[in-house]
This record gives sequence, C-alpha cells and structure tokens, in this order.
Amino acid sequence: MGIQRILIANRGEIALRIHRAAHEMGIETVAVHSTADSDAMHVRLADHAVCIGPPPATDSYLNQAAIISAAEVSGCDAIHPGYGFLSENAKFAEIVEAHDIKWIGPKPEHIRTMGDKVAAKQTAGELGLPLVPGSEGAVSDYDEARKIAAEIGYPVIIKAASGGGGRGMKVCDSAEKLEGLMKQAGSEAKAAFGDATVYIEKYLGNPRHIEFQVFGDGNGSAIHLGERDCSLQRRHQKVLEEAPSPVLDSAERHRMGEICADAMRKMAYRGAGTIEFLWEGGEFYFIEMNTRLQVEHPVTEAITGVDLVREQIRIADGKPLSVNQEEIAFTGHAIECRINAEDPFTFAPSPGKVSHYHPAGGMHVRVDSGLYAGYSIPPYYDSMIAKLIVYGRNREGCIMRLRRALEEMVVEGVKTSIPLHQELLRQDDVLNGDYSIKWLEEWLATREA
Amino acid sequence: MGIQRILIANRGEIALRIHRAAHEMGIETVAVHSTADSDAMHVRLADHAVCIGPPPATDSYLNQAAIISAAEVSGCDAIHPGYGFLSENAKFAEIVEAHDIKWIGPKPEHIRTMGDKVAAKQTAGELGLPLVPGSEGAVSDYDEARKIAAEIGYPVIIKAASGGGGRGMKVCDSAEKLEGLMKQAGSEAKAAFGDATVYIEKYLGNPRHIEFQVFGDGNGSAIHLGERDCSLQRRHQKVLEEAPSPVLDSAERHRMGEICADAMRKMAYRGAGTIEFLWEGGEFYFIEMNTRLQVEHPVTEAITGVDLVREQIRIADGKPLSVNQEEIAFTGHAIECRINAEDPFTFAPSPGKVSHYHPAGGMHVRVDSGLYAGYSIPPYYDSMIAKLIVYGRNREGCIMRLRRALEEMVVEGVKTSIPLHQELLRQDDVLNGDYSIKWLEEWLATREA
Repeated sequence: MGIQRILIANRGEIALRIHRAAHEMGIETVAVHSTADSDAMHVRLADHAVCIGPPPATDSYLNQAAIISAAEVSGCDAIHPGYGFLSENAKFAEIVEAHDIKWIGPKPEHIRTMGDKVAAKQTAGELGLPLVPGSEGAVSDYDEARKIAAEIGYPVIIKAASGGGGRGMKVCDSAEKLEGLMKQAGSEAKAAFGDATVYIEKYLGNPRHIEFQVFGDGNGSAIHLGERDCSLQRRHQKVLEEAPSPVLDSAERHRMGEICADAMRKMAYRGAGTIEFLWEGGEFYFIEMNTRLQVEHPVTEAITGVDLVREQIRIADGKPLSVNQEEIAFTGHAIECRINAEDPFTFAPSPGKVSHYHPAGGMHVRVDSGLYAGYSIPPYYDSMIAKLIVYGRNREGCIMRLRRALEEMVVEGVKTSIPLHQELLRQDDVLNGDYSIKWLEEWLATREA
Repeated sequence: MGIQRILIANRGEIALRIHRAAHEMGIETVAVHSTADSDAMHVRLADHAVCIGPPPATDSYLNQAAIISAAEVSGCDAIHPGYGFLSENAKFAEIVEAHDIKWIGPKPEHIRTMGDKVAAKQTAGELGLPLVPGSEGAVSDYDEARKIAAEIGYPVIIKAASGGGGRGMKVCDSAEKLEGLMKQAGSEAKAAFGDATVYIEKYLGNPRHIEFQVFGDGNGSAIHLGERDCSLQRRHQKVLEEAPSPVLDSAERHRMGEICADAMRKMAYRGAGTIEFLWEGGEFYFIEMNTRLQVEHPVTEAITGVDLVREQIRIADGKPLSVNQEEIAFTGHAIECRINAEDPFTFAPSPGKVSHYHPAGGMHVRVDSGLYAGYSIPPYYDSMIAKLIVYGRNREGCIMRLRRALEEMVVEGVKTSIPLHQELLRQDDVLNGDYSIKWLEEWLATREA
C-alpha cells in the first residue's frame, strides 16, 4: 500500500499545486496553516487542515515540531515541503524520516551537501559538472597568475578570498594590467577583510541563467527534462522564466542535459532537482543545485507533458520514474510570469483584500494561484500571488498568447506586477530572447530615468 | 495584407474563444451583442462592440442585416459565425461574401449541400463515406425485401418513407418475420402519414457517436485531426465528449480519418468541418456533416496541439493549412464536460446572477467560459455556461484530473450540471468507456427511479 495521505508543509499556490497532484493520484491531503491563512484556498480544498501557529513563518511554517505533530495527529504517511520554508532543511528531512514518514524530497545527505556552497562546488566538479575555471585557491605569484589567466582567457576577475559584496574585486582584461590590479585588489581586501589573499576566476560579463531539471529514483537511475532560461531577474529574484532557452539548440540541450543526468546517476540522487548554471559564449558554469521543486517548474511540465509533482510523489513512494529519457520529447515553448502583489513601478509590496479576481483562460493557458475574490493577501509572506504559464507551438506564438492572457487577467483591490509583464513583452530584447541576467535591472534603471 | 478586424457574430464562450484566437494573431475584434448581453465577457474584452438588437436571437444574433451593417460600420474585413445561430446559413455566408467580407467558414455551396439531409447523404456516398446500408428507396416486393435484408444482415429496421418520430418503424430480426412486420409498418405509416411506402435499413441497436474533425484549404488539400467520441447524450444534446474514442485503435483512426480527409479533398472543402458517424460492431455509418466549428473542438486541440480557430482564420485569409497530415500526432487523452446552468436532476434551466465564480486551474486544465462573479446569465439563450476541458497522458489520468478539477469549480447563485458530471465520473460504464448513445438516458431513468 503506497502513500495514502500527504501533509503539505507550505502555503499559497505551491500548496494548491501539491494538493492537485495528490488528488489526481487518489491521495488525501492535510493542509497546515498559520492563523493568517485560515481562509487560504489550499486550506479550503485540502481534505483536512491543522493550524500550526501564528505568523511570522518561524512560528508556523518553519515550526518543525508543530508540523511533525500535525502529521502524526492527522495520520499522514508523507510530507511534501514545496519550495522555500523547510524544503531544503536536511535536518528536518531527517526528522521526518526518523518518524517513519515519507519525505517527498531528496535524500537528506544530498540536501546537506548541495546546501553548503563550498561542498556543492566540489561535489559538482567531481560529478563532472562544469565549474567556473580559476586558480583553485590563493594566488600570490604574479608569473603564476599570468599563466593561470592566460589558460582561462581574458577577461578574468580577481576576488578576495575572504571577501564579498564586490570589495577586493577587479576585472582584468589583459596580462599587462594583471599585476597592478592584483595589488589593488589585495590592498582593498586587506583593508576590508584584514586578509590580502586573492584568487582568479574567469570573468562572466553578461551571462544568462540556464538551469536543468533533473529527476532521480534514488537507486542510480536519473533523467533530465531539459532546461529553463531564468535570466530575467531583479535582485536575484526570477521574474519571467521560459523553456526552452532561446539560445540552446537541441544537440546542446541533450549534451548538457545528459551531463546533468549522469551526475545524478553517480550520486544516486532521489526526486526532483535543479542544477543552475551561468551560460556565456556557449559555455556552462555551475552555480548551485536546488534540491527541491522550483517555482518555475510548470514551464518544464508544459513542454514535456510530465507532471513533476506527481513524479516526486511516485519516487518518494518507492516507484520508478514514470518515463525514461528516450520518451521525453521537448515540444513547443512555454513562458511563466510570476505575478506579485506589488507596485509594478516601485516594487513596494501591496497586500490587502482582492475585490475581483478573474484568471485568464482558454487554450494552453494555465494559472496556478490561490487567489479568489474576497481573499485577503496577508502581509507576512512572499508577494507572489499567481503564476501565469502559457504554452505555444513556438516562442512567437507563446508570446502572442501570453499577451492575450495578461490582457484578460483581473486582480483588483491590490497592485500587481501584471503591467510590468505587459511592458516587458513589448521590449525588443525580450521579444528576441536577447537578454542576460543583467538586462532587467539595466532596463528598469532606464525606465525610471 | 491579411485579415485586420473580425466581427464575431456570436455570444458566450465561443465568442470569447474566437476573440482569443484573433488577439493571439494580432487581429482586432468587434463584438456584436443583444441588449441582454451588454455586460457579457466577450463584449468587455473585444476591441469594439456593437449592439444589434434585443433578445430573442431572431431580433439580434440572427438579424443578418444588423450584423452586416455592424461589420461595415466598424470596418471589419471578416466575420466568424461561431457555432449555432448563422453558422450554417448558406444564404448568410453568400451575403457576407457579396459584401466583400471574408466568411470564416466553408464555401456556401458546401454549407447548403450538407444542410440538406438527402443531398448530404447522397454526396457523402459519392465521396466514399460509409452509409447505413439499406434498400435505397421504397420496397414493396417481399421477396426483394428478404433479399435486401439478407444482404444487409439482420436485424434490419423498416421505416416509413414519409415518416418520422418512430411511427411506421419496425425492427426485424429474421427473414420469417419480415413480411408481417412490413405490412404492420406500412399500415401504421398509411394511418400516420397517408403513405404506406416503406424502406429497409440496417438496424443499429446500440451505436456510439463518433465524429471526425476535418480541415480543408478550399483548394483540394485536406487533413483530419482524429475523432471525438460524443456518445454521452441527453435528448440529442452532447453532455461529455472525449478524444480519442475508447473504442478506436490507431490503425482504425488513420484508416477512417483518411477516408474523411479524402472526401474533403474531392470536394475541395474549405475550413473546419465535422463528419458525424454512428459506430457499431467496428463499422462506421454516416449521419451528417457539420460545416462549422463544434462545441467540443477543444478535446481535439488538446490531443493534437492544433489551434482550430486559428486554423479557420488562416484558411479564410487564403493561407495554407499550418500542418500536414504527417505532422499531426495524437497524444494523450482529453475530456470536455459541458457545464450548463440547469438543475442537475430535473434539467430545468437555472438562469440568474452568479454570486461567486472560480474556475478550476492547474496543469492541463482548460476552462472556456464567459462567466465572472456578478454576471447575470440571461434566460434567452442556450444554458451552456462553461466548458471544462482536461487533458491527461492517458484516459485514466485524464479522468482523475477531471474529477479533481470538478471538485474545484465554484459557480454559486445558479444551479449547474457540475454534480451530474461528478456522478457520471463515478459510473463504472463511463470509467470503462463502455457506453452507447443510449446509455445516458437509460442511466438517468434508473437514477430517477
């Protein structure tokens, strides 16, 4: 007998997403919620609901003891953590498993490794994922530095070993300038961090953010589901995501996807994961791996037809992957707009009561949202209130449909980022897919001027 | 320069459907509406709107002069008639074309031919579509009748040539009974219609309704998009439709689809059409051809990915079909539930104000509806207020998702057929795909008892 009842340790649209997948598999759901979320959609739709404390999240959605108690009291045999909150907490995953409750997520040791920046990079390198080339440690000898930089290729970036926040960082575009810039970086680093040690890395001036969706069964089988391009970001928050990336062709997708799937096979990775890369000049550079479902997973679902949450639940239940690599076809194009309750110009949060709500509809339009007319968006949580995901036979058709869908969306009573998305979809660079991770902030600066 | 502005000569969800396709092609829309529909969603979303008269439809949606005037005044270069109303009016199609406005529909002569029951059957036969085998005219000689019946195979049905409504109809299961039943049928026919002439046809005791979607470019190219099974009917109204049919395999789909496409090639048919058949014992029998878009077209869109309304507009604009037969793949399974504003037990219409409305959302769920919270469903028109279309990788997955989606749908203030669909999806015969066109009414009779 497989999983019978899942506790959903999250809120908002992702809680609803998990509920839907569970019900489509004939599995009951238990919602946990804060006192601020008693009227939330996921609470209304779940088979059972347990209040686990007041806002802020530390007292409820991050309250591990309360969540475990809720699972035990309500007879749940599995917990899905969604994204954020406890989803990448290895200790919590261990506690769940110690209570003989299935953890719908990766093995705790993999969560732990990938959650540690240094261990993650080292592991990624060992697994064959491409890293940003660099000096692999401190460099003080200038001749050695020039040799390394020549191997990497200019421009390179000199970084403070103890640094952060841009201090002690210098971009160098030629061998002649290297010694001087290393000295400058060293003295800045000394002043800022009390440590003059520097190292050298390849400088990525204008990279894209491209990530690969992977899935493992925990026993050494793994697949990739292609990439997502999430380069349109503001303050490291993704705003609009698409699949496939406008810059990858099918051969490159399969080559890189296979490298990622192979890394997961070596780890015997379990469940859903996302391997994030910077991409520039045709090369990939590992950033980090997220050991959970991503917000933007629906664009992958749209172009592959694979239900990722269903797959997560199956795997946690000890079942094999429902598809093998050969069965996964990438068809058409999908874009997701994250719709936030915020001022589309100042980005100030705009919680409050939604007086009217009407999601877009029609062919190949998907809305994942817990909104309803009369719902009050609480001020305590992330401002994302809906995801609009649109599919088309090609990128151009997808964009035309997305514009049409944005025209139709009605969210009244609060400000939303819908007008921002509409404006974005009028920009030539966006229409041409010609943007890096810096594009959005640069464009916003122009817009403000 | 192609079509720039389309007048939508319809209302409700289909008007919205056409608006969406047009906007996704960068084409403007003009809504026409009755005084009862001023607040309708399609009127709100269209670029322009023209009031063409009061209800009932004869004074507005069927008012040809008012619609032509609206098209001319608003500068439309094309008219899409949707389904129902003027969509199969050959005369109107001619008037539209005479005004140098593009008719987004088949050639008027094909509308006319297929609108005439006798001409349609004759044409279908000439085009190679399988007809119900029979005597091809009156039979009075009993030996000849026995010969014909033996060729057709028993059971046969004896029908009054001037008849209808079941009078003068006799089902005969053996040669011994034929003469006696012909005499009975003849005298009943004489009494009812003043004409004792009878003819003989193959009797279909428990057929399914299976229809093929076809598309022609008007110049002799044509494709089929597979079939839809619409056997679940009440009083000849389809209630739930699915694609593919649970009883056809891929070889049979392609064989029969090719017969249909070939018939369209011979006619040089233009635009969307549906060829309806009864199906029993592995054989197809032509009923009629609908020279328009069908209500249930989204299930075909779901399994083929082809946007049928976009295709209609392209063809009316003189463009070729966007796909050829080899490019059309049939993937997964789709079901549409027609949601009516009516009592789910008595079927009494339930117009009125919708106090709350929340369509289902999430992966592979599509809602085509003009509903919104606060909208008043007028009493003058068809009771269908929404179509819920769900897609899954297979029929079982589709049904699970459909149940989940029905749970989520909220339409308050009026009665709807949602509970009927929920009940249907608990019936073994429906789950097994084991139903004929008689199933639903027989089941309803049981339910009432």
